[in-house]
Amino acid sequence: MKFLHTADWHIGKRLNGYDLLEEQQDAYRQIKAIAREEAVDAVVIAGDLFDRALPSEAAVATLDNMLVDLNRQEHFPLLAISGNHDSAVRLGYGQEWFASTDFYLRTDLANCLTPITLDDTEFFLLPYFEPFAVRKFFQDEDIRTVAQGMERLVAAMQAHFTPGKRHVLVAHFFAAGSSHADSETLVQVGGLNAVPVDLLSPFDYVALGHLHRKEALQNEAKIKYSGSPLKFSTSEAEDTKGVWIVDTATDPVTVTFRPLKPLHDLVVLTDSFAHLMDRERDYPVTPEDFVAVDLTDTVPITNVMQELKTRFPRIIELNRVNQLTVTPEDLETQQLQQDPQTLLANFFEQMTQHPLTDQQREWAEAALQRAMKEDTE
Amino acid sequence: MKFLHTADWHIGKRLNGYDLLEEQQDAYRQIKAIAREEAVDAVVIAGDLFDRALPSEAAVATLDNMLVDLNRQEHFPLLAISGNHDSAVRLGYGQEWFASTDFYLRTDLANCLTPITLDDTEFFLLPYFEPFAVRKFFQDEDIRTVAQGMERLVAAMQAHFTPGKRHVLVAHFFAAGSSHADSETLVQVGGLNAVPVDLLSPFDYVALGHLHRKEALQNEAKIKYSGSPLKFSTSEAEDTKGVWIVDTATDPVTVTFRPLKPLHDLVVLTDSFAHLMDRERDYPVTPEDFVAVDLTDTVPITNVMQELKTRFPRIIELNRVNQLTVTPEDLETQQLQQDPQTLLANFFEQMTQHPLTDQQREWAEAALQRAMKEDTE
Repeated sequence: MKFLHTADWHIGKRLNGYDLLEEQQDAYRQIKAIAREEAVDAVVIAGDLFDRALPSEAAVATLDNMLVDLNRQEHFPLLAISGNHDSAVRLGYGQEWFASTDFYLRTDLANCLTPITLDDTEFFLLPYFEPFAVRKFFQDEDIRTVAQGMERLVAAMQAHFTPGKRHVLVAHFFAAGSSHADSETLVQVGGLNAVPVDLLSPFDYVALGHLHRKEALQNEAKIKYSGSPLKFSTSEAEDTKGVWIVDTATDPVTVTFRPLKPLHDLVVLTDSFAHLMDRERDYPVTPEDFVAVDLTDTVPITNVMQELKTRFPRIIELNRVNQLTVTPEDLETQQLQQDPQTLLANFFEQMTQHPLTDQQREWAEAALQRAMKEDTE
Repeated sequence: MKFLHTADWHIGKRLNGYDLLEEQQDAYRQIKAIAREEAVDAVVIAGDLFDRALPSEAAVATLDNMLVDLNRQEHFPLLAISGNHDSAVRLGYGQEWFASTDFYLRTDLANCLTPITLDDTEFFLLPYFEPFAVRKFFQDEDIRTVAQGMERLVAAMQAHFTPGKRHVLVAHFFAAGSSHADSETLVQVGGLNAVPVDLLSPFDYVALGHLHRKEALQNEAKIKYSGSPLKFSTSEAEDTKGVWIVDTATDPVTVTFRPLKPLHDLVVLTDSFAHLMDRERDYPVTPEDFVAVDLTDTVPITNVMQELKTRFPRIIELNRVNQLTVTPEDLETQQLQQDPQTLLANFFEQMTQHPLTDQQREWAEAALQRAMKEDTE
């Protein structure tokens, strides 16, 4: 069989105040198009469907529409689990009905040992879990870490393997390092909550969610993070986002990456204020792209955020990559030329990287007027 | 056919801080027992399944369990709509899958003209709506009130009636008065958002939710509020709560009331403090009943709420039914005998009917100490 592996949709996530629902809907449409083109037999979503335990109504409606479309309109069997960002209860509401159209959603450990069989493959759906949950599941107080829990869970799953079938694990955790020989590396990289990848070797493929970069386990041929469908932070600016197409008909399974094209990209620009404001210069961004600026200047710049916004309307972050080299005298001269309101506004902006809102400006004006009145009394 | 009519479950509601989930689960079990005993062919829930648009996780899990139990375990077809307390989006999440086991949930007007047919009866499911929604539905800017909207909706539903079938409306609004002859009464009773009952005459039965007392339309033989399964306020203390069993095999339909017994009752006690505290006196309450006290005393009583709590642990309300007749001199004498902390605590309690919490007591002490320190400086 052939399935599509995606994860970390984070429906409802905002990027520095910007709603991403439009971008998320576009990414969804691309995923659906790939699923059709590849004629996959199922779609796997490995957790973090929502961005928050308490998603907004708009986020609930958006995800519901996507799931209805993919499963009920397009008739793709769906295999999904909750991630650490989801509320197991809220995401899971109604799940007992979903299986009527081959939509298998698991949000707790209850059925994790019973695989869903589709064609030649047994899927084990393991939602995000805390150590206490697996402790309770096995009634074993000695299980203290996610890794210890996984060791027990994998052994128990193996006992349910049907010989001759392919075995796929769908899970949401931090996988890294190795459980033996190199245990110091493990502790360094992932700490006690990391799952050593060699624990996962019994499976023909492991469809992971949690980390947003598909490169997180790039040396593993059959243990993969799909990564998120969109760039959710500047640390992901260089990523190519996408989904995996997994074909279980070959041995080992064949894994192919299918990229997604962002509706609006997230770009980091590193340059001086003068260059950035120069309209003759060409930067690889559209007015709707999300822009983070790493400013190289070493002097304070008045209204820097507002100015940059005139050139890059959806600026989401401003960092100084060099130390400021301004002298107290410079500041003195500059300050003497400005009224208190402007000084306050500039200072606020230098400190917070945001201009004052209209409301804040009103408060500041009222406070300054009161202060000056008291001064003259 | 025979169906059970209930409404206004308000899962997640709290009564003056007391969680009602245990009471709600008990009421649910009674409703299920009645449904079994009467061997009904369907259960109708006429809105306000949740108490809040944003229910707690515990409330979501509780309602989900009830619906799963009633529909998937007990195999009762379910007909439900959203009420004004529900978020249409949150309650409706997953609803597209629910019909696979004859659970019909409607949270918007989209399908309200298409009846659900069970045996001899066509059910029209009409969720709570605001005038703007029905204006949009009919693309008619002249619809300004719920009553105007209902007039159009009922006419449109009638056009979909299959002759020879029984026609039942499930709805959630304020029904009262008459649309003609007595229009002043209508405006007086229900205002612009009331729906005149005679608009509803085309139906063989109207299963309403919204008002919590089954007596709300007691003169109507076939237009009924089921009322809530529990007493949710002191104004409902005298109510007998229950559900209607509706039999469509007779003409007109036969309607029978089946009462529910509260796990813990809600009782209003009207008496003097001395009587209430007298352990020789017998009041018709258990220690777990919710008690509202109408105090007949005319003098201030120290620590009244805390004292009454020793006798009635789940006191939820305290009202004075008589004016206080204490003189300023009385107060003066009383006050001189008390330290500031006690005075403050008593005053707080007289005003709010709640004792100070431990945290509030700490804050009060800190503030008083600061004040006294400043006094002596």
